[in-house]
Amino acid sequence: MQRYFTDEPINDNNLITITGEDAHHMIQVMRMSPGDQVYVVAENFTYTMKIMEGTSKAVVLQIVDKLTSSNEMPIKVSIVCGLPKGDKLELITQKATELGMHTLYPYEAKRSIVKWDKQKNEKKLVRLQKIAKEAAEQSHRSRIPTIHSPINLNELLEIAQKYDVKFVADEEDAKHEQRQKFAEQLKKVYDKKSILIVFGPEGGLDRSEVKVLLENDFQPISLGPRILRTETAPLYALAAISYEYE
Amino acid sequence: MQRYFTDEPINDNNLITITGEDAHHMIQVMRMSPGDQVYVVAENFTYTMKIMEGTSKAVVLQIVDKLTSSNEMPIKVSIVCGLPKGDKLELITQKATELGMHTLYPYEAKRSIVKWDKQKNEKKLVRLQKIAKEAAEQSHRSRIPTIHSPINLNELLEIAQKYDVKFVADEEDAKHEQRQKFAEQLKKVYDKKSILIVFGPEGGLDRSEVKVLLENDFQPISLGPRILRTETAPLYALAAISYEYE
Repeated sequence: MQRYFTDEPINDNNLITITGEDAHHMIQVMRMSPGDQVYVVAENFTYTMKIMEGTSKAVVLQIVDKLTSSNEMPIKVSIVCGLPKGDKLELITQKATELGMHTLYPYEAKRSIVKWDKQKNEKKLVRLQKIAKEAAEQSHRSRIPTIHSPINLNELLEIAQKYDVKFVADEEDAKHEQRQKFAEQLKKVYDKKSILIVFGPEGGLDRSEVKVLLENDFQPISLGPRILRTETAPLYALAAISYEYE
Repeated sequence: MQRYFTDEPINDNNLITITGEDAHHMIQVMRMSPGDQVYVVAENFTYTMKIMEGTSKAVVLQIVDKLTSSNEMPIKVSIVCGLPKGDKLELITQKATELGMHTLYPYEAKRSIVKWDKQKNEKKLVRLQKIAKEAAEQSHRSRIPTIHSPINLNELLEIAQKYDVKFVADEEDAKHEQRQKFAEQLKKVYDKKSILIVFGPEGGLDRSEVKVLLENDFQPISLGPRILRTETAPLYALAAISYEYE
């Protein structure tokens, strides 16, 4: 069954009106008509709803049922990702959304070759948010991940204060033998509510960045013996956390 | 340090000669010269080797050191993947190689829209093998995964006989409530040596295919509460197995 996210309120008669692209999608693309049912995520809950009437501009739906189960991770996991090259951030956004990420913070790392200027920034963000919304719909999530605009190291440290657990995935660690097993570290923080994990861009984090993070309560983690690409590492971490917690 | 895979033998003087693309890469692309060191994976071991002499056609190297540690998974994990659309199989090949996959079997599933004809088959396979080789080099593996040509259901059942544990990732399961936790199932097979996991194409496996697999000793697994795309599910499974075993 199709799934739509909306910011519209549910009125006192258990009705909701969906407009814009989603209305177009229901009526024009999916060729739905009154009586057809869809999932609607509104006001942080997922409902089964029935189409009462609709045009490609506006569709009125009525609540049939409220779903009680949640497909969200029992823990809030956010990703800080050194700005990578090409369209890798799109792949990370899509896959990390499927894998349950809460928020994505692109990070202007020292070794990030890509820079976002103001104009590019806005366009890119809109595109990433669209990818996150579509992936959230397809993977049956009840929350669309937040895609933040790029942050610098100071902003990262400020954001980190709001998280119970802070990890930094440090490639150098995987190369050397001082490996701290991710599994062991995760088990130690099992009762915590929020995790922030920092990943470097291609070429990894600069030693000076790692030093600052370690001085600010971040714990280094190693994601297994093989070297993972920039875009693979966050997916590994999210899959491992889902596996551990879900 | 660069890493090269070769089928060439090591001679009695601890020398090896590398030709073809890799020789070109060392001398022309990386601009290496006598005395420079690289990793060479030969005869199933990884060696540190020193260039003795070389042209872009042939490079002679001498063993400096033999590495004892392995970056390979302690268990053989192979993926059967319903032929997906577009270039998704390339993404799966690259990422699954990073994540430690042993062999990839593309599978002509009932709902696979894509068909490979004989000519396409060969071209695609060469391309996927190249992707696997490059990903194995980059992720510091000591083995290049085998990329098999597409198989049908009968061939799949025959191949499955060689594996200790057989799983089928069934999307319908994730939708319904009869979830069998992957973590619990993996823990039950901890002492086994080889795992084969079947994933459907877009739209999932046909009920009739699942039935045949279940009759042939496959166990259904569910990969968490969210619906994962065709190309994300194998990566989730490999990451989870790596997390559990490594």
